[in-house]
This record gives sequence, C-alpha cells and structure tokens, in this order.
Amino acid sequence: MSTRGIRELRVVRLDGAAAAPDDDRVAVEEPLEVRVNGAPFAVIMRTPGHDITLACGFLLAEDVVRHVDEVAAVEQCDDVELEALGNVVNVTVTGEAAERVAARLGERRQVITTAACGLCGRRTIASLRSRVASVGGAWTVPAAVVSSLPVALRAAQATFDVTGGIHAAALCDLDGRVRLAAEDVGRHNAVDKIVGRALLDGALPLDRLMLVVSGRTSFELVQKALLGGVPLVAGVSAPSSLAVDLARASGITLCGFVRGRAMNVYAHHERIAG
Amino acid sequence: MSTRGIRELRVVRLDGAAAAPDDDRVAVEEPLEVRVNGAPFAVIMRTPGHDITLACGFLLAEDVVRHVDEVAAVEQCDDVELEALGNVVNVTVTGEAAERVAARLGERRQVITTAACGLCGRRTIASLRSRVASVGGAWTVPAAVVSSLPVALRAAQATFDVTGGIHAAALCDLDGRVRLAAEDVGRHNAVDKIVGRALLDGALPLDRLMLVVSGRTSFELVQKALLGGVPLVAGVSAPSSLAVDLARASGITLCGFVRGRAMNVYAHHERIAG
Repeated sequence: MSTRGIRELRVVRLDGAAAAPDDDRVAVEEPLEVRVNGAPFAVIMRTPGHDITLACGFLLAEDVVRHVDEVAAVEQCDDVELEALGNVVNVTVTGEAAERVAARLGERRQVITTAACGLCGRRTIASLRSRVASVGGAWTVPAAVVSSLPVALRAAQATFDVTGGIHAAALCDLDGRVRLAAEDVGRHNAVDKIVGRALLDGALPLDRLMLVVSGRTSFELVQKALLGGVPLVAGVSAPSSLAVDLARASGITLCGFVRGRAMNVYAHHERIAG
Repeated sequence: MSTRGIRELRVVRLDGAAAAPDDDRVAVEEPLEVRVNGAPFAVIMRTPGHDITLACGFLLAEDVVRHVDEVAAVEQCDDVELEALGNVVNVTVTGEAAERVAARLGERRQVITTAACGLCGRRTIASLRSRVASVGGAWTVPAAVVSSLPVALRAAQATFDVTGGIHAAALCDLDGRVRLAAEDVGRHNAVDKIVGRALLDGALPLDRLMLVVSGRTSFELVQKALLGGVPLVAGVSAPSSLAVDLARASGITLCGFVRGRAMNVYAHHERIAG
C-alpha cells in the first residue's frame, strides 16, 4: 500500500495527568463511488489504493460480474467534483452483466457499503443464498503451511500497520507463498481487492489457493471466498456462526485462531494433512 | 446478552502435529429483516437480542426516524418462513417518518447491511453528509473518567466474550457509570441497540452521555454518535481518518487507544479536564 493509505495528524496524548501534543498516524478511510456503465451503483468506504480491482471484486461479490470477459473497461472518472476526484470509478460491463446490472438498478437504485460491508443491496433473508453452491479443490495441505499463513500475510504488507486500524488479506498457494495481498480499513475490501485482481487476470475459480485474513471471519467473507472458488479460509481471530454454517455447507475449509502452531478447524478439516 | 448470542459447536483443534475434536463457542450472526410499515427495508447481519431497539437505532441512523413520537409500534413478525422466525421486525412509523420512508423506498428498494455496516442506501458521496451539523455538551470530564470507560464497558458485558468475536458498546454518564450497554458481532449494531433504546425512551439528544466502543472507530460510528447527540466517543483502538474529520467538524471529542491511563485525543480535547 502506498502512503496514500496513511495520514499524519496532530493529536493530544494523555497519560494520567500529563498531556502533550504529538503527531499520530491514522488509516485513511474515504468513500469510493462505483459506477457501472456510467450509472451510480454503490459507494464503498475504503482505504484508497487498488481501486480498480476493488471495484471489480465488489461487483463479483455483488453477482453483477461473473467473468472477466464481461468487463470491457475500468477507469477513474474525472467528471466529478473536486472533493470526489480520485474517488469515483466507472466499470463498463457487457453481455449478461449489463442485463444483471440493469435488473439490479431497477430493484435498488443506489447502495453505499461501509469498510466492513460485503452484501449490500440484497432483497430479503432468502436472497442471502449464493448462486455458487460449493467449491472444488480436492487437495490437502500440511497444517504447518496453514500455520505459516498469518506470518506470510504480515510479511507481505507493503506498509507495516502503524495505525492499528488496517486489515490485510492475501491469496496464498499450497506451499504458503503469497500470490496477491492487499490492505484496507475493511477486511472485506481487502478481499475484494485481491479477488478482483484475480478476476481481471482470468484466474477464477481460485481452487488452488488459500485465503488468509487478519481479523475475524464473518459470513460475507466466506461468501466472497465461495464466489471466488477459494477452498480454504484462514483467519487470525474468531469466525461467526453463520460463517461456519456457510463453510460447512459449501465445502470450504475454515480455520480460525491461527496462531503459532495452534488453530481451530471449524469446517472441512479433511483438507488439513496431519 | 442472553446465551442466544453464543453457539456451541464441534471443532478440530490442531496444535502442531496433535489434532483433537473439541467443543468451541462462536458468536451467533443471523440476518434481521427490518420492515417499515410492512415493506422490507433492510437486512442487518447481527447477533440476536435487543432486536426492537436495534431496528429503531438503525432507522435513526438511516434518518428515517428522528423522534420517538414517529414510532407507533415495533413488533416481531410471525408471518414468515420457519427459518426466518424471530429474525423479522416490523416498525410502524407515522407523520413525516412515513413520508421519509416512502421517498427512500422509491429511491432504493431494499438494502442489506452487514454486521459492521452503518450507512447502507445512501446515493452518492455527497449524500454522506449528515443532516445534523454538530453536538452540544459544553461540559468537561476528568481524563481519569474517560480512562475508566473501557473497564466499565467490560464489566457491563452480560456475557464474558468467550468467542473472541463479539463487540460491545455503552453509553456512560459523566461519572463514568454505564447507563446502557449492548453486544453484537458488529460494533455498529451494538451502538444502534443502545441509541435505539435511548430513542424509544425519549432521551435524545444524549448530550450528557459518552459513548465507549470496544474496537476501532470508523466514520459511521462517529456519525451515529452525531445523530444521537453524543458529544464524546472513546474507542479502545484506532480511529480512521474520516472519523477524525467528522468528529472535528461536528464538535465531537474523539478519544482513541484508551488503554490504562493513556489515550490519544483526536478531536476537541477541550472537554477533557487535566
């Protein structure tokens, strides 16, 4: 991540009775307006950087785009107000994606998602079900490789997180090597950024890769893995109940609390070789 | 929080070469469908419990409801599929709130928000601006009281977080006593639950209270404080750049990394008495 993702500002540091002005760094959070074929589609609260791949990964997760062939162009828009400059991206989609977006815009005109949001715009509880039923990936991986993923993720972070407010995600191969990594104030954005990159590379489904995330594992995160075809998700912290349910139902191996040599496997432990 | 917020399940615990089945607990995450005057309005991924106040706090943050007088009734719906039972709430609103929701449903029909989402459904970047410009609260509070808030928050948690996946939020008075507290997989939901409770109690604006949250402080969280009229927000971890910007612009005192006797004050430190 470039330094665009971090902002320096003046703060007052208090320590008991002592108070002193000081410099501090915070993670940048700015809105990204995603347009599809010129029409406003969604606003995502995100850390600037990798906006093109974020927009594409988001549209994959929203089930607007399903294949790289449906993406004709992606570009930053400059026909915007000064304050929005650099924060508006237009994705030109073709074929069935154009029909899907037209149908979607008819049913809900605009959506804003926040830094941690991944499912905005769905209709009802029933609509949460994914069009993809399950993942492939009939392989096994040594537990030691899964244990190494959080370390590899941290090493891949272009900027050491000095703000305490940035999440990271990476796609790693079965030897534990990081293939794609991204950072963001939102875990979900970090995942959209790397899955979006893979989408544009024509690399989906990602059935020979593993997804590692820096924080908790929620439902939306497992669903993003499912839409990308990723058979294993490893998190440094806890999963939610619905994340476990979806992983079990869709064939995804879900590891939580991956710390040192220990981890909990919440679903499909058959991919983890003793 | 009731035990409904935690689910026990079987996992495989790995520690190096050793693997053993074991029981584990995860935070429950389930979708709550919020209907307004009978029409689907939003789906919120949340931890069950305090659903009535969550729905009301969410509608306040969405600027559908502005005053308790506009809420005629809130009820769990039983005319739903079995799997959705207990996960659908209908809010009956009157007066100008009914007009606002009609206008909103015309512009975007349905929205789902995730556990960490707080601003779904806005139109463009410009629409992020809040209708409320600033908070009141011309008081000061000793730094030691702010330092005590995370401890008070933890003590107020009905269930010790055994899952590693639950956030908490509380509204505290100027002596540091917890007046309202809630837990959820999403920080934003926890805030909506307590601000929604205060809304229904006719207690807004909350200009003699402070908001303490267990995690990071994002833009949406400060905006929820602003709509509730809360003049001070304290977080255990880092704020984002946009959270700092909004706090500075709206008169909110924003404290981050409140740990032990130390904290950083990112905005309006004049409320903190030496």
